[in-house]
Amino acid sequence: MAGQSGDLKLLSSFASPFSLRVKLALSFKGLSYENLEQKELHTNKSELLLKSNPVHKKVPVLIHDGKPVCESMIIIQYIDEAFAGVGPSLLPSDPYERAVARFWAAYIDEKLFSSWMMVFKGKTDEEKAEGTKQSFAVAATLEGQLRECSKGKPFFGGDSVGYVDVALGGFVAWVHAIEKLYGLKLFDAANTPLLAAWLDRFCALDAAKAVMPEVDKLVELAKMRQAQAAAAAEAQGN
Amino acid sequence: MAGQSGDLKLLSSFASPFSLRVKLALSFKGLSYENLEQKELHTNKSELLLKSNPVHKKVPVLIHDGKPVCESMIIIQYIDEAFAGVGPSLLPSDPYERAVARFWAAYIDEKLFSSWMMVFKGKTDEEKAEGTKQSFAVAATLEGQLRECSKGKPFFGGDSVGYVDVALGGFVAWVHAIEKLYGLKLFDAANTPLLAAWLDRFCALDAAKAVMPEVDKLVELAKMRQAQAAAAAEAQGN
Repeated sequence: MAGQSGDLKLLSSFASPFSLRVKLALSFKGLSYENLEQKELHTNKSELLLKSNPVHKKVPVLIHDGKPVCESMIIIQYIDEAFAGVGPSLLPSDPYERAVARFWAAYIDEKLFSSWMMVFKGKTDEEKAEGTKQSFAVAATLEGQLRECSKGKPFFGGDSVGYVDVALGGFVAWVHAIEKLYGLKLFDAANTPLLAAWLDRFCALDAAKAVMPEVDKLVELAKMRQAQAAAAAEAQGN
Repeated sequence: MAGQSGDLKLLSSFASPFSLRVKLALSFKGLSYENLEQKELHTNKSELLLKSNPVHKKVPVLIHDGKPVCESMIIIQYIDEAFAGVGPSLLPSDPYERAVARFWAAYIDEKLFSSWMMVFKGKTDEEKAEGTKQSFAVAATLEGQLRECSKGKPFFGGDSVGYVDVALGGFVAWVHAIEKLYGLKLFDAANTPLLAAWLDRFCALDAAKAVMPEVDKLVELAKMRQAQAAAAAEAQGN
């Protein structure tokens, strides 16, 4: 690609929202890379993954000219800094606006994922209900921030997508999968209209569509994992 | 101070390792600020704190010319960027080295604090023992990184303190307090000699000494909290 320097490899998993974030950032910046899908992440991690991320042993890892960078939002900042002249900037240039963007990306990391995990992995109906409640509370907070920061503009980043859009964008395929799995609209037009409109707008971007996983495959994977967990629980009970 | 522009206020708590990080960063950069100690954080948060950090309602918050920045490592990046011409840079200039520094600061955030909380708040002896075991494992990983990155230099940042030193530096007063409370040397010279030497070297810096809380006050606070928790548990039992 124009202006790109060096060789980029991405160790990723198609179902990982954190991997999707990096794919989105690379796509928005117009950077080309070799995607190395990591299969059997739960049972048989590749030598390259273990060597590239020996501390966490997790995807995504971006390898730039042989040097590994780990952790999705750190990778995205790296992409923005190492390829500063290529494509749009994801973080704003003003230090205060950068701090605000980092704050909301961290909020998404800390609150959104954990509340969804309660919906998925909650052991009782009460835990699942608490996860759903927290998911809607997080969406309401994000709605408030979107109203505040966008001031009528289409994205968290303003007129074009930025750091927070990418942080949240990693989850949009799972928003659709959760709707199919549980009939649960996490970014609901009635409660969070700006967020619902953001979701449609983000998913319609060509650069997003180019890297988005198929929702049906996520649904299939979730059903398989749930069946495995149920079988394991039953085996333990016997 | 020379080169400083604007008014800085810090909402902090003397016992908070996250507040200490920001004080350390401001001290290393040679920036002057008004410290607004937040008392009764558990029972009666100040209006200014609630207004400045409505999402998390937590210290530290740095207010620069009336604009609040929250979350310790985000504040430190903000300080480094907004006062780029003042004092030493905390993050390196090379994008790859910046990504490595961010990785290790995130590792400290994610792993060190949680393992210590298990030591403090573990409900059984087994939980406390697991916390101690994890604390030593985290220290061993940091020892490896210090050997790798410093290559004989005194700090994670090289010849002078940087982003990772500040991230870890926020915890050093508690390292000493935990030793007094439990006789537990978390950065032990026998197991982690580089980290133990780093601890002594970091604590001897004038800019660190200027903002470090008194260890005896932390010990006193921890004992008071433990007594309160025991009294509450007993009251529940009655």
